[in-house]
Amino acid sequence: MHIGLIGLGRMGNNMRARLEKNDIEVTGYDTNPEVSDVATLADLVAALPAPRTVWVMVPAGEITDNVIRDLEPLLEKGDLVIDGGNSRFTEDFTHAELLAPKGIDFMDAGVSGGIWGLENGYGLMVGGSKEQVERVMPVFDALRPEGPREEGFVHVGDVGAGHYAKMVHNGIEYALMQAYAEGYELLDTRKDIIHDVTGTFKAWQRGTVVRSWLLDLLVRALEQDPEFEHIEGFVQDSGEGRWTVEEALNNAVPVPTISASIFARFVSRQTDSPAMKAVAALRNQFGGHAVKAVD
Amino acid sequence: MHIGLIGLGRMGNNMRARLEKNDIEVTGYDTNPEVSDVATLADLVAALPAPRTVWVMVPAGEITDNVIRDLEPLLEKGDLVIDGGNSRFTEDFTHAELLAPKGIDFMDAGVSGGIWGLENGYGLMVGGSKEQVERVMPVFDALRPEGPREEGFVHVGDVGAGHYAKMVHNGIEYALMQAYAEGYELLDTRKDIIHDVTGTFKAWQRGTVVRSWLLDLLVRALEQDPEFEHIEGFVQDSGEGRWTVEEALNNAVPVPTISASIFARFVSRQTDSPAMKAVAALRNQFGGHAVKAVD
Amino acid sequence: MHIGLIGLGRMGNNMRARLEKNDIEVTGYDTNPEVSDVATLADLVAALPAPRTVWVMVPAGEITDNVIRDLEPLLEKGDLVIDGGNSRFTEDFTHAELLAPKGIDFMDAGVSGGIWGLENGYGLMVGGSKEQVERVMPVFDALRPEGPREEGFVHVGDVGAGHYAKMVHNGIEYALMQAYAEGYELLDTRKDIIHDVTGTFKAWQRGTVVRSWLLDLLVRALEQDPEFEHIEGFVQDSGEGRWTVEEALNNAVPVPTISASIFARFVSRQTDSPAMKAVAALRNQFGGHAVKAVD
Amino acid sequence: MHIGLIGLGRMGNNMRARLEKNDIEVTGYDTNPEVSDVATLADLVAALPAPRTVWVMVPAGEITDNVIRDLEPLLEKGDLVIDGGNSRFTEDFTHAELLAPKGIDFMDAGVSGGIWGLENGYGLMVGGSKEQVERVMPVFDALRPEGPREEGFVHVGDVGAGHYAKMVHNGIEYALMQAYAEGYELLDTRKDIIHDVTGTFKAWQRGTVVRSWLLDLLVRALEQDPEFEHIEGFVQDSGEGRWTVEEALNNAVPVPTISASIFARFVSRQTDSPAMKAVAALRNQFGGHAVKAVD
Repeated sequence: MHIGLIGLGRMGNNMRARLEKNDIEVTGYDTNPEVSDVATLADLVAALPAPRTVWVMVPAGEITDNVIRDLEPLLEKGDLVIDGGNSRFTEDFTHAELLAPKGIDFMDAGVSGGIWGLENGYGLMVGGSKEQVERVMPVFDALRPEGPREEGFVHVGDVGAGHYAKMVHNGIEYALMQAYAEGYELLDTRKDIIHDVTGTFKAWQRGTVVRSWLLDLLVRALEQDPEFEHIEGFVQDSGEGRWTVEEALNNAVPVPTISASIFARFVSRQTDSPAMKAVAALRNQFGGHAVKAVD
Repeated sequence: MHIGLIGLGRMGNNMRARLEKNDIEVTGYDTNPEVSDVATLADLVAALPAPRTVWVMVPAGEITDNVIRDLEPLLEKGDLVIDGGNSRFTEDFTHAELLAPKGIDFMDAGVSGGIWGLENGYGLMVGGSKEQVERVMPVFDALRPEGPREEGFVHVGDVGAGHYAKMVHNGIEYALMQAYAEGYELLDTRKDIIHDVTGTFKAWQRGTVVRSWLLDLLVRALEQDPEFEHIEGFVQDSGEGRWTVEEALNNAVPVPTISASIFARFVSRQTDSPAMKAVAALRNQFGGHAVKAVD
Repeated sequence: MHIGLIGLGRMGNNMRARLEKNDIEVTGYDTNPEVSDVATLADLVAALPAPRTVWVMVPAGEITDNVIRDLEPLLEKGDLVIDGGNSRFTEDFTHAELLAPKGIDFMDAGVSGGIWGLENGYGLMVGGSKEQVERVMPVFDALRPEGPREEGFVHVGDVGAGHYAKMVHNGIEYALMQAYAEGYELLDTRKDIIHDVTGTFKAWQRGTVVRSWLLDLLVRALEQDPEFEHIEGFVQDSGEGRWTVEEALNNAVPVPTISASIFARFVSRQTDSPAMKAVAALRNQFGGHAVKAVD
Repeated sequence: MHIGLIGLGRMGNNMRARLEKNDIEVTGYDTNPEVSDVATLADLVAALPAPRTVWVMVPAGEITDNVIRDLEPLLEKGDLVIDGGNSRFTEDFTHAELLAPKGIDFMDAGVSGGIWGLENGYGLMVGGSKEQVERVMPVFDALRPEGPREEGFVHVGDVGAGHYAKMVHNGIEYALMQAYAEGYELLDTRKDIIHDVTGTFKAWQRGTVVRSWLLDLLVRALEQDPEFEHIEGFVQDSGEGRWTVEEALNNAVPVPTISASIFARFVSRQTDSPAMKAVAALRNQFGGHAVKAVD
């Protein structure tokens, strides 16, 4: 099979390598001419056999949207665009509608695995038609981890369902990370009792209820930098967590741990908290409690 | 009526003033001789008519405990010790037991109102026997706000009940403050929409569902320092909030807002968060996401 | 001054009464002919002096939107529509744009006070132009509580700002209610200690830090039904709380107590929790812990 | 090596099997004579070679405490008691002190793995002296999972440290379970989008960031009972989660996800919520919102 891959950054480049290793022919396009196989999107389309499969792997939002809008006039009936980025599921509806009048198909693929995917394979959650999913299954089989297909790949539902599942996956991921982090902080705070914090996490890797891949990575990180001396407690978020909470609000689903993990990230990025200034001011007003003055 | 008052700090001194204004005779004792009426605890006890009433108004914990232990040999059957500080309710059981063998009575009084109590009166929550509550009612009437007695005073139950009620009062207080503070931060963040943040809070003082004394104080604080430029978002906590959550845990009562408000205070005091370092390290491990390096 | 008022339900009817008591002439329209002053919207418009002021007080969402769309062809340059319902602030932008081509002005007014507004006056948060705010100030003065204007009325900013402020007001309101409720549950659970739960809340009404209008209402409710024997713990939400959290997510503002109070409402409406089924199933899987089987 | 094992319930019995399989001789004692190897504790002690090692594997709290108090007069200098149950770490200090005067050693072992430990081995977190840890290492090696020792065993620190680590392990475990459960509920609520909920979780087992043993168990549970039709959303908690939050409070460590997961369990066990009754009552008071009356 031969597909086009748009976006040859950290993720895209690794995915190309894994696809090629598993005998999928890939023509890659990137705005950076040094890594691109072709000069233009038109060249990319020209290089692919019909019906074409173009996998878009660029940052979510405006960039993904522009790429798909640029592809639309170049493709033809029967071709397929797969958005493998971290787009919001609602974007998928827009893109499917955009391409439908010309008979171009659309599919969304949530891709998990980060920089380890090249080696381990990528967990894939796909939304689209049964026919197209079957047609491009060799691509999914090349990308997914070894083992039973259903343990690393799922056809979740129609267009949008793949990104929906990926969104929830990331919401859960945020809360899992926060859970380990809270435990870490408590153990680290009581080093008078816990003489070997790294060793404790390390010992949880086999046999315990909390064993997981994230735990393995935490051990790896602690072994590289015990005490995290070289890392600031400053954490970005990339959208999916917020969207998960918004979806939960829209559907009256309580998500206290997922929301707490996102709020913790927000706080981590503040140098001073307006809310806590207000609380300090209130305490000062009623109790005469000293406030910490800004220098 | 004539009582002894131990502890003439910010709270104790104001309370003495209010008591005297309302015709309660007060002999005060403080370790600071400049403000103390008598030289020793023994002198204080000697100055009081039997049966004696001694109101202890010193910092909770060790200091309160020491004062009550020092009083025990000096007092006699029929005397009464009232702990008006922010003691944990479990301490009250200890102190009642300590004094009981000699026939000395004990009462706990939760006192709310802060530095405004002198002017507005203090909200009082009392635990102890019906007889003693009735005997010292003139003291409570002098301290409590004007208006119907039951709107500023309550005999909550037996020994410990006053401090229990005060503990819960403070737990609620923490969450109320946090609620306004979260709203403040959101309004403050959207000053592109909200052209008058202080004015908005000010306009909530009458007619709205959120009107309260804390809101009045927030308006006062904002009028003194709009933007809270001179206040750091660094907030202490004094114990009652934590005890409220512990009690909730012991009784399987969910308290998500009270606990959230305490955790927000904990975070406000951290210069860097071990937990968020761990999350940043994890993101870096799986996604290759850049971390913010410590300089 | 003479205005039109659309929507004569619980809120609208009370507002009409307060307006008329304060010498504002009101022509009311409602789809219910029994309470309506006029037969049609066209009749309403015809009855008003130019430039017309039409206050829309109907349920937010589709109904408000339809009313404003129906008004647009009937009104003319210089007329003003005020949306006093609980619309999302983003709707205001749409409605202002809809009316602008014909030179019809738009203003949004957040209104707080519930069924007590007739007696106490309504807290008002207004978004719109300075000129229009000044022109209809007699209406706001009639509706707002007695006392200084700025303690019950605020011109928050341009169109949308009034509903934005009201949205945050309600977000705060949710968390305040939850805070008292958590304290109530803890006190109620420990009636072995707290012999007078209602009396405790009653005693907080004067002098304490937690005194507020909501506290007064809680006392009122407890006096009517101590133990809340006739009330189910089933709580609806009306949108503003969710929107507040969404806005907080969009602006990276942590709102742990506001979100917790909304999640508590979601849970209150579930007969069984899918999430907790999953947790029960997990415990059973790893620990052999018995699950509670559905009959 | 030959040890005594007290408590032959679900956990103890499995542990005996694993120990014996790995060539550790075990004399077991249980109050149930049908499963006990000996008639009395004294018989157990008599059957063991000095210095004796007695592993206590009974329910935490009073039962563990009684067993250790009963053992104390029977043991002699140089013997060792290991508490492998889910005791609070503060209990360990008491037990070490109880046994110290006679020169009896004490060690605490947090044991994770549940009913799978027999097959997979148990994750072990141990507190005690270096000498004793080395002496009984064959026992730990028999119990722990295969693979590198440090990935399933850790000597955390002095007495109490093992249970401290286990406590935090379980706190994390609670939050991890809640995270997956929230994601499950959201996916399950949107089955209009997610056509294969079980398949989605199943596909996360390889390659994704959220893969873990708990995820594997969730898939197992969903395959046994998709929709969890036979399970009620009623979840017990066994203490460690609460203790984790208490310790976090004592050390000013924010634990929003761990506390949220415990509160979710508390709510899951309520048939009606006093707190939400209070919120419903409040809404009714200010807004005239209908309440759901109890039949």
